[in-house]
Amino acid sequence: MSQPAVFILGGAQTDFARNWSKENKHIAALMREAVLGGLEAAAIEAGEVQTAHVGNFAAELYAHQGHLGAFVLEADPALSGIPTSRHEAACASGSIAILAASAEIEAGRYDLAMVVGVEQMKTVDAAVGGDYLGTAAWYEREARGIEFPFPKLFGRLGDEYDKRYGLKDEHLAHIAAVNYSNARRNPLAQTRNWYMSESHASRQSRYNAIIGGRIKASDCSQVTDGAVAIFLASQNYAREYARRRNIDLDRLPRILGWGHRTAPVEFEAKVAESRDNPYVLPHTRQAILDAFKRANVSLQQISAIETHDCFTTSEYMAIDHFGITRPGESWKAVEEGVIELGGAMPINPSGGLIGAGHPVGATGVRQVLDAFRQVTATAGDYQVEEAAKVATLNIGGSGTTSCAFVIGR
Amino acid sequence: MSQPAVFILGGAQTDFARNWSKENKHIAALMREAVLGGLEAAAIEAGEVQTAHVGNFAAELYAHQGHLGAFVLEADPALSGIPTSRHEAACASGSIAILAASAEIEAGRYDLAMVVGVEQMKTVDAAVGGDYLGTAAWYEREARGIEFPFPKLFGRLGDEYDKRYGLKDEHLAHIAAVNYSNARRNPLAQTRNWYMSESHASRQSRYNAIIGGRIKASDCSQVTDGAVAIFLASQNYAREYARRRNIDLDRLPRILGWGHRTAPVEFEAKVAESRDNPYVLPHTRQAILDAFKRANVSLQQISAIETHDCFTTSEYMAIDHFGITRPGESWKAVEEGVIELGGAMPINPSGGLIGAGHPVGATGVRQVLDAFRQVTATAGDYQVEEAAKVATLNIGGSGTTSCAFVIGR
Repeated sequence: MSQPAVFILGGAQTDFARNWSKENKHIAALMREAVLGGLEAAAIEAGEVQTAHVGNFAAELYAHQGHLGAFVLEADPALSGIPTSRHEAACASGSIAILAASAEIEAGRYDLAMVVGVEQMKTVDAAVGGDYLGTAAWYEREARGIEFPFPKLFGRLGDEYDKRYGLKDEHLAHIAAVNYSNARRNPLAQTRNWYMSESHASRQSRYNAIIGGRIKASDCSQVTDGAVAIFLASQNYAREYARRRNIDLDRLPRILGWGHRTAPVEFEAKVAESRDNPYVLPHTRQAILDAFKRANVSLQQISAIETHDCFTTSEYMAIDHFGITRPGESWKAVEEGVIELGGAMPINPSGGLIGAGHPVGATGVRQVLDAFRQVTATAGDYQVEEAAKVATLNIGGSGTTSCAFVIGR
Repeated sequence: MSQPAVFILGGAQTDFARNWSKENKHIAALMREAVLGGLEAAAIEAGEVQTAHVGNFAAELYAHQGHLGAFVLEADPALSGIPTSRHEAACASGSIAILAASAEIEAGRYDLAMVVGVEQMKTVDAAVGGDYLGTAAWYEREARGIEFPFPKLFGRLGDEYDKRYGLKDEHLAHIAAVNYSNARRNPLAQTRNWYMSESHASRQSRYNAIIGGRIKASDCSQVTDGAVAIFLASQNYAREYARRRNIDLDRLPRILGWGHRTAPVEFEAKVAESRDNPYVLPHTRQAILDAFKRANVSLQQISAIETHDCFTTSEYMAIDHFGITRPGESWKAVEEGVIELGGAMPINPSGGLIGAGHPVGATGVRQVLDAFRQVTATAGDYQVEEAAKVATLNIGGSGTTSCAFVIGR
């Protein structure tokens, strides 16, 4: 069935290097900065926004604050009264918010929706934060009493690749180095001034300790404070918006396709279910295929990918699950430079979660904003040349919720 | 703009008197019982469900578990792979999940959606639970360090009525007594075997202590464990469903209309904004009007109401905000017996939040399930005679998020 088009009008993200707790600022201030920045970047008046959807993982834990949807209103009095809601699927919360907003536009309920992804994580120390992240897995079975459960879970993803196909840690180190290198070009990336070479990422050292299983510090995405706002519009609104900016409607990017699938919560259940499947996470593969099918595109028409590298192993998984290589052969794309800026299929030109930062509930929205920037040739120093269609993959839990988008014209 | 119809095929709720912590059961088991009960009640196979939406307020706090959408899959292996998500707007989370699911059906994304509302609250003592509920308000400004912030906030709603129009506590006591009385007819109500007369509710006593401000224990809804599952369908699915049950499509209830509005988070900001408005919570009033307008009905066509009596003051507010009386004159409907079973406009035949129970994230779904039961004449001892169209009102925070539905044919 053909869907009404959902257009993306742009948006803004906060500087992911900032620490909002150190600045003594409430999560409402973090959201406000993204909202006001987004309104300005997209040249939209607050009073035009008809509905707002917030993606957030666990402000109840990190900030002892729920009901985050309503906090959008605090950004501008003109927003008072609009419908708001908050959506969650762990680290895929941002994509879930985009799916909810775009469904309402496709249904004809509203013409202009704001989507805000947000997470304030630097409110607690690393051990407590690691425990909170454990609530994205089956806490009682996979996280309770375990220090840093998620690096261990994604370490096991690497182990599963190793068992089925073989996996060399040097390829994971290369993935880390590419993300760090790309992030240096992104003026809002958390690690833009950090140092991480491939040789540094390859070695276990006092500066690069084992965090869990085969996962070293250099394999991990960051603890990040950040918010991102984007604006989605119906064709009616987009046409008027294009007219007042004196551009063709066809120049505005849109959500060309999306995919959304869920696998069993426990990692062991996932692996058991996929035992005879060439893909380690077949539901993730299916979410990507669904997005490509709805967008009516093949991988060859995709210019770049923003994927969920919460750990290097999840990017390694994404490479074959997107179909860049055959299953289990992701290392070939790593060795051949395919995934680098300037390569045949750049992955995470922004720096991804490892380089740009991973404010959990904001990440899916940040990916789509970066895809928008690429296809509108406004990505600055991390621009992929002639990017026309960009795909995203956002994952919640240990591969539990998978959301993919194709953004372009 | 005319929307595609969204049909309701039924569902099930758990026994709201149960304590799942005492039974040593995980929140996944609570959800599972509602899902399996709902599938059986609606005569749907698990493999037919195409998408699932979970309404939950704060499992992160109460159960130290996030990512609840994915836990739906644990109910039946046939659900593996379906898209899932969790939606939140404090005590209106259940309605937000219904809005998200119905938007996807209206958009043509899916033909059969499951909506599960769930909250497991008896995991902590009353003081800690009261603090958790404070995250539905602006925690730092309205709840931090305050014992039981929500009774106090809804006490202030009563105070605001008192200031503007006068308010007698005897009318609040009558509202409590009606809800308790109705709940005795509901075999799944938490208080079905409790004793609460109007005279008992009227008196402050050692058995009926002041909880906060003018709010006594008898004015409060309960701390409840509960889950509810309902099924929403497109016209395509509903037609086939009616055919195999050998009934007319027209006999299946549908969501005739909905409203969804947000007021400023802080209670003082709400009152300041509405100072010159005849309605204390004008955005709540607007959500109801929006639902009536979309359903193309007036109050006279509504047979009964399931409203959000988190406290007696919120039901008092609902009476004039639904237009049953003029603003400030809710007491007239109370005195005249309008709101009782057998009255001109029965409110909460189920017993409402005060009588049936208030598992926060489940309440909006429970209201719509009870509306379904009324309009299909399957409400048993709390059936409203010849109920054709039933309205619901579900509120998050201190009147912050308001969602209303009209259910019927």
